[in-house]
Parts: sequence; structure tokens; C-alpha cells
Amino acid sequence: MLSINRESMKIVQKILETPEALGVKVSKLENGTTVIDMGLEAPGGWLAGKYYTLITLGGLGDISYEHFQLGEYALSAVRVLADLPQIACVASQIAGWRLEARENAPIGAGPARSLNSHPDHYFDMIAEYRDVSSEGVICIQTPDPVTVDTADAVAEACGLKPENLTILFAPSASLVCAIQVSARIIEQTLHRVDEEGFDVKTLRQAQGYCVIPPLTNDEVQAFGRINDALLYGGIATLYVENTDEACAAVVKKITSSVSSAYGRPFVEIYEDAGRDFYQIPLDLHSPAVVQINNMSTGRTFRAGRINYEVLKKSYLGLTSE
Amino acid sequence: MLSINRESMKIVQKILETPEALGVKVSKLENGTTVIDMGLEAPGGWLAGKYYTLITLGGLGDISYEHFQLGEYALSAVRVLADLPQIACVASQIAGWRLEARENAPIGAGPARSLNSHPDHYFDMIAEYRDVSSEGVICIQTPDPVTVDTADAVAEACGLKPENLTILFAPSASLVCAIQVSARIIEQTLHRVDEEGFDVKTLRQAQGYCVIPPLTNDEVQAFGRINDALLYGGIATLYVENTDEACAAVVKKITSSVSSAYGRPFVEIYEDAGRDFYQIPLDLHSPAVVQINNMSTGRTFRAGRINYEVLKKSYLGLTSE
Amino acid sequence: MLSINRESMKIVQKILETPEALGVKVSKLENGTTVIDMGLEAPGGWLAGKYYTLITLGGLGDISYEHFQLGEYALSAVRVLADLPQIACVASQIAGWRLEARENAPIGAGPARSLNSHPDHYFDMIAEYRDVSSEGVICIQTPDPVTVDTADAVAEACGLKPENLTILFAPSASLVCAIQVSARIIEQTLHRVDEEGFDVKTLRQAQGYCVIPPLTNDEVQAFGRINDALLYGGIATLYVENTDEACAAVVKKITSSVSSAYGRPFVEIYEDAGRDFYQIPLDLHSPAVVQINNMSTGRTFRAGRINYEVLKKSYLGLTSE
Repeated sequence: MLSINRESMKIVQKILETPEALGVKVSKLENGTTVIDMGLEAPGGWLAGKYYTLITLGGLGDISYEHFQLGEYALSAVRVLADLPQIACVASQIAGWRLEARENAPIGAGPARSLNSHPDHYFDMIAEYRDVSSEGVICIQTPDPVTVDTADAVAEACGLKPENLTILFAPSASLVCAIQVSARIIEQTLHRVDEEGFDVKTLRQAQGYCVIPPLTNDEVQAFGRINDALLYGGIATLYVENTDEACAAVVKKITSSVSSAYGRPFVEIYEDAGRDFYQIPLDLHSPAVVQINNMSTGRTFRAGRINYEVLKKSYLGLTSE
Repeated sequence: MLSINRESMKIVQKILETPEALGVKVSKLENGTTVIDMGLEAPGGWLAGKYYTLITLGGLGDISYEHFQLGEYALSAVRVLADLPQIACVASQIAGWRLEARENAPIGAGPARSLNSHPDHYFDMIAEYRDVSSEGVICIQTPDPVTVDTADAVAEACGLKPENLTILFAPSASLVCAIQVSARIIEQTLHRVDEEGFDVKTLRQAQGYCVIPPLTNDEVQAFGRINDALLYGGIATLYVENTDEACAAVVKKITSSVSSAYGRPFVEIYEDAGRDFYQIPLDLHSPAVVQINNMSTGRTFRAGRINYEVLKKSYLGLTSE
Repeated sequence: MLSINRESMKIVQKILETPEALGVKVSKLENGTTVIDMGLEAPGGWLAGKYYTLITLGGLGDISYEHFQLGEYALSAVRVLADLPQIACVASQIAGWRLEARENAPIGAGPARSLNSHPDHYFDMIAEYRDVSSEGVICIQTPDPVTVDTADAVAEACGLKPENLTILFAPSASLVCAIQVSARIIEQTLHRVDEEGFDVKTLRQAQGYCVIPPLTNDEVQAFGRINDALLYGGIATLYVENTDEACAAVVKKITSSVSSAYGRPFVEIYEDAGRDFYQIPLDLHSPAVVQINNMSTGRTFRAGRINYEVLKKSYLGLTSE
């Protein structure tokens, strides 16, 4: 029986063995929950970003760093090699758990979602998977320290003792967050194919490649840039067993370019929407490029393109004349 | 004393710790042999492909995944970093052990070849190496479940108790097989340089880079595509201590482009040969590109090219006008 | 408390578990010091190069291998992902410890520098860091076997028992050395920004990418080629918290192209200087390309370029007409 919380705890253990070498800070809340700061007071780093990302994937697969050329600038990219992608990307990676009732509540991602006694609706997209584990891990993208209330609520919903819960967090304005968001290029695609009626249960393998944005300490600018990575600088490749008709039909509908909001840095769109994420057209939250390899026929379908112009504007402040 | 079976068993142990997270299935034959299905009934995945490939290399070296641009399509590639390449690629990786007398018999690759009491002729290419180990591992590219007869025969030939043998297998039509075949770009080159009279004993280091084909469930189409990866989409770099004359002479003879059969997708050549692998000109089984870095002089010799046209036809069904 | 010697000893332990699989040779000096030959009598390999490099970084971060296109030739490159780069690259990686008083004395790099009771001046560049450890590791780029005198002197300076010291070494003319020097692209940049008055204490993250030169057994040619990798084929990216003015001012001064000696293969410059490394203009020891990402503002500054012409001449003997 696959337990993605147990798999993720192996990575948590690696972090706990040597947090100081990874640039992260470990603390205990008063309820016993372990909290790992990977980018707020702690600097984080490349290995921390790798571990955080693997945990969001439920410990399934691997990531590596690569090159991304943007004009004269040599940026880096993350390659995401998700194994069992229905579980890794949908049951774990999607940030699908609104942790508090209030507006702008922190959103949880990672394997503890599959322990939540009230599973979020994303689980409907995939073949049955629920985890059974006495330990759980959740990841939160937030500029605020994690509270004991949040930890208690997560532990209770998961049926865990608070001391058996680990929470990793990093603000948008951090290297670790930039990496783990860029690594969301597959899940960003999966919720879109589902919304367009394509059966995610036919997904067999997946791979992603996405630019990692230049860093900034400004949380709003950072939030814009990490979204731009997905919208304008990421490629998702899905390997499915389906019909060519279904693949050909869906691939045209699920790149960011089909959205009415497409074509500007995300931060501008976000500001125009009064900084309300939920006022932005849902179909904008799509990848720049999608490739669907239908294993049933051997054919591959693709749509979209890397939008270097918007990335240059967002990342480098360059506007072409 | 280097034992490539012992090194490979370390990787087998990693697989056995968590097969469900790797998408592989472990079973025991009635004779006690461990069989790991990495792509037939099990889906496999990127980590499974890495582990399978490292085992074919006798546990020597590393692999990583990368980008391969084919027209508008972003495919992936495997980088093979073989250590001690005479042993990794010749004594282990070459699929050199015909496991049964019958036609279309399964062919064994991997470290158990160096335990076989009747070593195959590829061992003549390299400096003396034979393994001594009470455990052995063999890898088989096959669409059929592994039989106890095969396991018994391998164990006996290796002087192993059947329960100390591990067999990994995957059909051509699987992700794991696509990866491990693409990672054969170095050994594909070594048997060719040997055939042309170049002394493989002068090989010191090696590196390979090869496209990973799009996936298909059709075993013949898959077989064609994985061969096309080597013939039209792979680069082998050999580091030798030899004469510039020998390097310059051999490099021109060992790329696929010199074969009379060159220039079409492998599946067409295979069909024309009545699906008899052994009727295909031997010199076609060559890499697309070879680079030989002569450490004795510092000079590098190269020949061949990536053939994007054939890859587009084979992988994407595209024909240029 | 971060101990970079303890972190590095974890990697040393991995090497000691299976030196024969890595192509390295382990021996003990008569004083008990462990010496690991990674490229003189032993061939070394890709994993050995990775481990050696990670040890020079004090065990902080990761490296991977990639592609570097040079004309028709597919060379490889190393990507350096340094965590806590002030410590990894300055307190450990810089070859800053002249181990004997004599001319052409071996130079030590690696974490034992931070145990030396007479720390070298590079420590002034960064925020306070000194290690406390009963074990130490040092790395030496040398074509000569390591002597017991050198080992005794290092152990004494570090307050270590000689049997608790590990020394790794490789000559310039080796694969391991080619890799670890190319991976010096960040530290090569840090000493230059410091020399130009930029505050290295504002450094938060770093990444490097640098070509790995073709191999040669000639020590002087090899020495030239590994320097050419940094001068003409490497990109350093620094992430700092500073002013845009300081970033914009320094970035123009610290690429190799600003040096009066720029534009020829290093070996020619070295020969003209009578093979005296210290007669070469200090500002030549700079990276080909520098990118400074100012996290305080989100802006990125860059200067320099990859010089393919010089690399072709040095690595391939090609001169363009």
C-alpha cells in the first residue's frame, strides 16, 4: 500500500538531520507540531527547494535544475519528473485545502490532503486514492508564521496527533517557493484538462519543465513572477491512454493563451482584479505549453508557446520596441 | 575488489524498500527468484527508469534527464554518466546473453553477465573483468512475463541459488524501457568501434546523451522508436588513450550514417527484414554521433549528426515537404 | 551549529564505502591520514567528480551535468547549486591555503580551511564562520602524491589528530579536476566582487554553470583548459540584497573581458608569464559572464559573454578564419 505521507516523511527526516546545512529553521509549536521555515526567516536554498517540491509531490518522482535562456540572460529552470502523477500531482501537489474559513486563508498542499477526512474536490478527478498514515506533512505558501490554530485544525482533520504533523512553509518571496511553484506546471495542467472534460483517470505518466523566476523580496512582485513562470514559461507533457480525438480537442483549450486575460504580466492582471486571486478568469491558470502523448496510438498533440516577451517584461523589466 | 552485482543489489534494495512508490511490481517465482515488473503490468516511472538503467550499468555512474528539442516539440533526453565504462557498458550493459536456444529468445543484460560461467564474446573487448558474488541481477527487455525456466537457467549458469537472483524486466512499450535503451548510446558505440578494430581497452571515460522517444503501447512501434533514438538521436563521447590516427580512422566508420540501411525509421527497415533483427545490417546498430576525445594528445574527433527529419517522422508522424 | 567538515565527512563516507566503484584509490599515510587519489593513479569518474566538488563546497548544495554546445561539438557542463554560498564558496571552496612555504607549494581548498588556526584572508569577505570539528577534509589540486609532511602540517594547523584528517587530490590532467575547477565559477566571481569593493556579506544565494573541458594527459595543457572554462565558458549568478547602484557598478568590472590579458587561451598567457601563475594580472581570474539578481529590488544586472572562439581554439584546436 502506497503511503505518500510515509514517503514524504523520509524526505522530512533528511531535512531534520541537517537543517542548518539546508538553510532552513526547524521549530516546535506548543502543540508539538514540527514547523520548518524554508524561506521566511531562513534563507532556504537549492536542496531545500528540491526537498520541499518532492514533499509537495508526495515523495513520488524527482526534480532537477536546468538552463532557461531569456534573451541574453541565463535563467534556470526546474524539470519535474512526477511518478504516479494522478497521486503525486492531484492527490498531493495541488494547493487544494483552504485551511481557514476567512478570506486570504492559507492554502495547504502536499500529502496531508489525502488524510483529510473531508477530501477536497480535486480527488474526484482521479482514480481512488486515500492515504492511511499516523504521520502527515503539509506545505503552505505564506509570508506569515504558522499558527498553532492552523496546526491543530490540520491535525484534527487528518486524525493525527499534532506532534505527528509536520508543516513546511515559505513565502512567495523566497527561492524555495519560486522553485516549488514552477514545479507545479503539471498540476496546473491537470486541473485545466479536467475542467474541459478530459478524463484525468487516463493519465499514466507526466513530466514538466518550467523557468524559475529571478528573486525579489517584494511579496506581490514575487507572486506575480511565480505565476508568470507557469503561464508564460512552462511546458507540461502528459502521457495518457485515451482517444486521439479527446487529446486533439482538449489540447487547444488548456493553454494560458486561450484566456481573455492572457498576454500581460500576472501582477498587472492581479492588481486590476483588486488583488483578489479569485476574480481572475479561471482559464488563465493554465500552462504556457501542453503536450499530450497518447500512448494508445503513439501520437503527440501540442499547443501553446513560451512567451518570452512577457517573461522579459516581468523578470527583467525589459520591453521590446 | 569491484563487484557490479553487489553494487547493483544496492539499487535493487532501494527498489524493494518502496516498489509501490516507483510504480513497479515485485513478485517471487516458485524457485525463489525475485522478479520486478517495471513496465508490463506495472506503469513504471522516471525513478524506476533511472534505477533500471543504473542496474544495467552495474551500478557504475549516474543518469539524469534533460531537454531534447524536436521541431516545436519539447522531448526529453537521458544523459548517461558511465563510470569505469569498460565494465559498466561492456561487462554489464550490453544485451549479450541469449537466455534460451530458441528463436526470439529473451536477451539478458546487466551485471549477472559477468557471473555467467560461459561469458559472452563481448568480454573479449575489454580488460579482464569477472565478478564474484553470491547475489546476481539481470535485466530483460521483453513483453512476456519471466518464467521459472529462464530464472533457473540464469541462476545455474551464474552459480547462484535461484533465491539470490533478481530479474528486472520491461517491454519495449514502456517508459522504463524507452529510458534504458536510450541510455545504451555508449555501449552501442563500443561494440562498433571494436568491430572496426579499435582497441576498447584504451577507453578511460564515457558519456552519452540520447533522446527519449514518445511512448506508445504498440510493441513494434515502440521497438522502432527506441532504436531510432540510438540511430538518429544519440551522441556518444568516448575518452581514450590511443593514437590520433586510430581515433581519426575509426570515428568515420561507426556512425549509423555509414550504413546502407541508414535514413529511414527503424520500423520500416525492420518490417522489410521480415521482423528479423538479425537480418538488418550490423553496421546500422551505431550511434547518430560519435566524439572521441584522445586524452593522450588532447584532440577530439567527431562524426555523424542528429537526424531530426527521421526522428520527426518516427516520433511525430511529421514529414517535411 | 553548521559544521561543513561534518557535512563533508558524510560524502567522504560514501566514497569510502565503495571506492572501487568510483574509480578512486584510498590509502593511509604512516601518520594515519586517509588519502584519496581521485585522478592520478586512479581514473576517477563522473560520480567521483561530483563527490569531490561537493566536498570542496563543504557539503552544501548539489551539482549536475549538462550540455554545452561548442560549434559542432557537444561538450558537457557542470551546474553548481551552492547553498549558503558565503560558507560553501568562500569559507570552503576557494583554494586559499598555501600548504608549504616553498614556491609552487600545493594549495588547499575545502572545509578544513575553516578549521585552520590561521584562517586565510578570504574569511574577511564574509559573515563570521569558523567550524568546530574533530574531523577535517581538505582537497588538493596536484600532480604529486600527498606527503606525510603536508598531512601533518594541515592536521596540526587544524588542531586535528592526523588520523582524523582526510585528503582528496587530483591532478589538473584528470576528469575529476576538470569538473571541480569548472564548478569554481561562483567563487571565481566572489573574490572579484570583493576586490572591487562589493560587499559579499550581502550574498544570499548563488548558482553557476560552466563548460567542462575536453581531457588531456598533459598537465600544462589541462591547466590551461580548466582556466579557460572559467574565463571563457562560465556563468555565475549571484542573488544579493544590496543597492542597484552597487550591483550596476560592480557587474561591469568583474568579467574576464575587462582584463588586459583577455582574449587568448590561458596556456599562452601562462607561458608568456614564465609559467608563474602570480605574474598574471589578477583581474583575469574572473568569470566569462556574471549576473547579479538584486533581491532588494528584483532587478538583474549582467555583463560578459561566453567566448566560443577562444574555447574552440583551446579545446578543439580550431581557429576561425
